[in-house]
Amino acid sequence: MNFVEERILKDGIVRSRTDLNVRGFLRNQLDTDLIEQIGREFKARFANLPVTKVLTLESAGIAIAYAVAQQFKVPLLFAKKSKSINIAGDTYVAEVASFTHKNINTVVVSKQFLSDKDHVLIVDDFLANGCALQGLISIVDQAGGTVEGIGIAVEKGFQMGGQVIRNLGYKLESLAIVESMDPETGKIIFREQ
Amino acid sequence: MNFVEERILKDGIVRSRTDLNVRGFLRNQLDTDLIEQIGREFKARFANLPVTKVLTLESAGIAIAYAVAQQFKVPLLFAKKSKSINIAGDTYVAEVASFTHKNINTVVVSKQFLSDKDHVLIVDDFLANGCALQGLISIVDQAGGTVEGIGIAVEKGFQMGGQVIRNLGYKLESLAIVESMDPETGKIIFREQ
Repeated sequence: MNFVEERILKDGIVRSRTDLNVRGFLRNQLDTDLIEQIGREFKARFANLPVTKVLTLESAGIAIAYAVAQQFKVPLLFAKKSKSINIAGDTYVAEVASFTHKNINTVVVSKQFLSDKDHVLIVDDFLANGCALQGLISIVDQAGGTVEGIGIAVEKGFQMGGQVIRNLGYKLESLAIVESMDPETGKIIFREQ
Repeated sequence: MNFVEERILKDGIVRSRTDLNVRGFLRNQLDTDLIEQIGREFKARFANLPVTKVLTLESAGIAIAYAVAQQFKVPLLFAKKSKSINIAGDTYVAEVASFTHKNINTVVVSKQFLSDKDHVLIVDDFLANGCALQGLISIVDQAGGTVEGIGIAVEKGFQMGGQVIRNLGYKLESLAIVESMDPETGKIIFREQ
């Protein structure tokens, strides 16, 4: 069991079979020591890749992505969510349908920050159905850049996002993969990795 | 001239008398070395204060606030912007009118993360009219906590936010205070501090 799994067992709250509350240390309130350790762990897991930029989506993943970028000594770029229809031509845009919320989210990155020379490590805090992640991959593709890898703090292994991304051949590293949760007992089962 | 002012002169783009574009190193794309240095600088400026938590507002200020929290070795808490009217009773809520956009923004923090025992350092990337900052101060007050200080990367000295906060007696430190900008020449004048 690694340090992220241990922390989830200690402080995570199982609210339902699909809802894990990690707001106190990983989401709304961040334990900076834990985040720093996550940064170092991803640096180790993606050590030999020629990463030029770390990309995330605002806002929950920003601190973790920053901690990773800090380790790689590369810039952190974050995509913005947009509801506006008028998006200038100088942006990469991905429209991603949310499986959970049945709506469309628009993910935007300014073209000046991403090019075909970029080797991108995508980092986010959570992976469930992977809609946000699909949008970020699409944006790197639009720029002609290379997705070197994807680092996720907590993957919900009982939802399809991770499987899709692995099937597509991406190097996806999740520090904790939750296989199942029981709200009655509070028990959390992680996937053996 | 300090390192933030120097960087703004080098890479900032004056788009109008009021609009400074620092998106390439401080906003959408973050220079991690610069952010780390900002974290250390705020640690030095607020060194002797008993800070228990760093508070910011999503999403542009999160990385800077994280870098500060990392130096203080305290948790980073971020307030969320909300448009929903149905906010549960377990949250502190501040409604802040935007002088610029003529609308109302709702800033929300879960009550479980802030109490009367907290000594809070508020950190944000920009200060102009200070609406967001007023909302964050209100939230710390609602919790019965103490605002120990406020750290801002770039203050627009020609807008009123900073003056209001200083008049109210808060210890506000801005790493760069832009006094005026000229879009024709690109010249930026900083306030002597």
